[in-house]
Amino acid sequence: MARTIAILGGTGPEGLGLANRLARAGERIVIGSRDAQRAQDAAKKLRDEIGGSAQVDGAANSTAAAQCEIALLTIPFSGMAGLLKELKTVWKPGTVVIDTTVPLATAVGGAPSKMLGVWQGSAAEAARELLPKEVSLAAAFHNLSASLLEGDATVECDVLVCSDDEKAKQTASELANKIPGVRAINGGKLENARIVESMTALLIGLNIRHKVHSAGIRFTGLPIS
Amino acid sequence: MARTIAILGGTGPEGLGLANRLARAGERIVIGSRDAQRAQDAAKKLRDEIGGSAQVDGAANSTAAAQCEIALLTIPFSGMAGLLKELKTVWKPGTVVIDTTVPLATAVGGAPSKMLGVWQGSAAEAARELLPKEVSLAAAFHNLSASLLEGDATVECDVLVCSDDEKAKQTASELANKIPGVRAINGGKLENARIVESMTALLIGLNIRHKVHSAGIRFTGLPIS
Repeated sequence: MARTIAILGGTGPEGLGLANRLARAGERIVIGSRDAQRAQDAAKKLRDEIGGSAQVDGAANSTAAAQCEIALLTIPFSGMAGLLKELKTVWKPGTVVIDTTVPLATAVGGAPSKMLGVWQGSAAEAARELLPKEVSLAAAFHNLSASLLEGDATVECDVLVCSDDEKAKQTASELANKIPGVRAINGGKLENARIVESMTALLIGLNIRHKVHSAGIRFTGLPIS
Repeated sequence: MARTIAILGGTGPEGLGLANRLARAGERIVIGSRDAQRAQDAAKKLRDEIGGSAQVDGAANSTAAAQCEIALLTIPFSGMAGLLKELKTVWKPGTVVIDTTVPLATAVGGAPSKMLGVWQGSAAEAARELLPKEVSLAAAFHNLSASLLEGDATVECDVLVCSDDEKAKQTASELANKIPGVRAINGGKLENARIVESMTALLIGLNIRHKVHSAGIRFTGLPIS
């Protein structure tokens, strides 16, 4: 049976965008939400948009987490700790969790172009503390604007993948490379998510100043195609 | 008389690289160093390399700072506070200072791909505290690798310029745009240097992992050429 990718907190724009792109790449997707009905409605809408043989279902976050091999965390930072505590005993051992969370100041009513200080250093390192040891973790996809993930156009952006776990890093890189135009780049250890997460706040600032939703990043000068 | 640009702490690779590029663009450069003779030797070497009518001189940091209209700070972070205290009463009112400093962990013996926490938030904000009010400050050039600044080849990188002072932001942007290939991008307020500085540590990590010295950043999806 094909692997299942859960997109937890997946009814927001970033989650729906990643669900869209990964479903178009042929992956089996379960959108997770606090409200199972909301997730199912979002899944149906996405299936209708993509058409063809798109495999997108919806479920409560805990149901989606229990049945997946890979889970993407696409919840706001303010909801991350609560969700991960709820899911503590739900995961199958060996599940790869990919954190996309950015600790934007919006979590406490601040500006989206500013960051919160997180004691552990980053949302990803905070997630690592809250996940059981049997689950692998990578941090990725932070710098892809949700609006670029709609539809099927080429995305002119690189995705930095940070992890202390080789399997998780490879899985996240493989998924990133499935989005047309996207290039996965080894971002080093999980702690480097401190920098990668903050780059999202910078991109949001560029979007605001230029009145667009499309700012992204490419790295130059690397010996990779 | 043409304006003078001082490159303070300019005998290191980043300072020499910026001196090289700005001299090639026709600017009048004074390389500053703790040791005036060392600065003069570096200036002569650069004049010989560039040839033609390159205007590059050398002087002690305080002499260079006193005679310039624009100063680039290219010292290691560990030397920044000492230098700025020394220069406190030296600046001409209206001087534009452009800080390129990155608080890398190397300042305390750590890895160049890691950052120090700076109480003020960034090296640039620390510099602001140490500079007199009559001096304008922008932060820029952090993400240009020194090795890319040698010679005269096109540089495939963007330069984020952060400042709370419109004159300083315009001056730094103008200088960045003089380097072939470089595109200056408005990075917002000076406090955003927190993010831009940390991106240098990320680029150093990419260089180390890929065994190159050429990693850089381009922004995509912005309505500018």
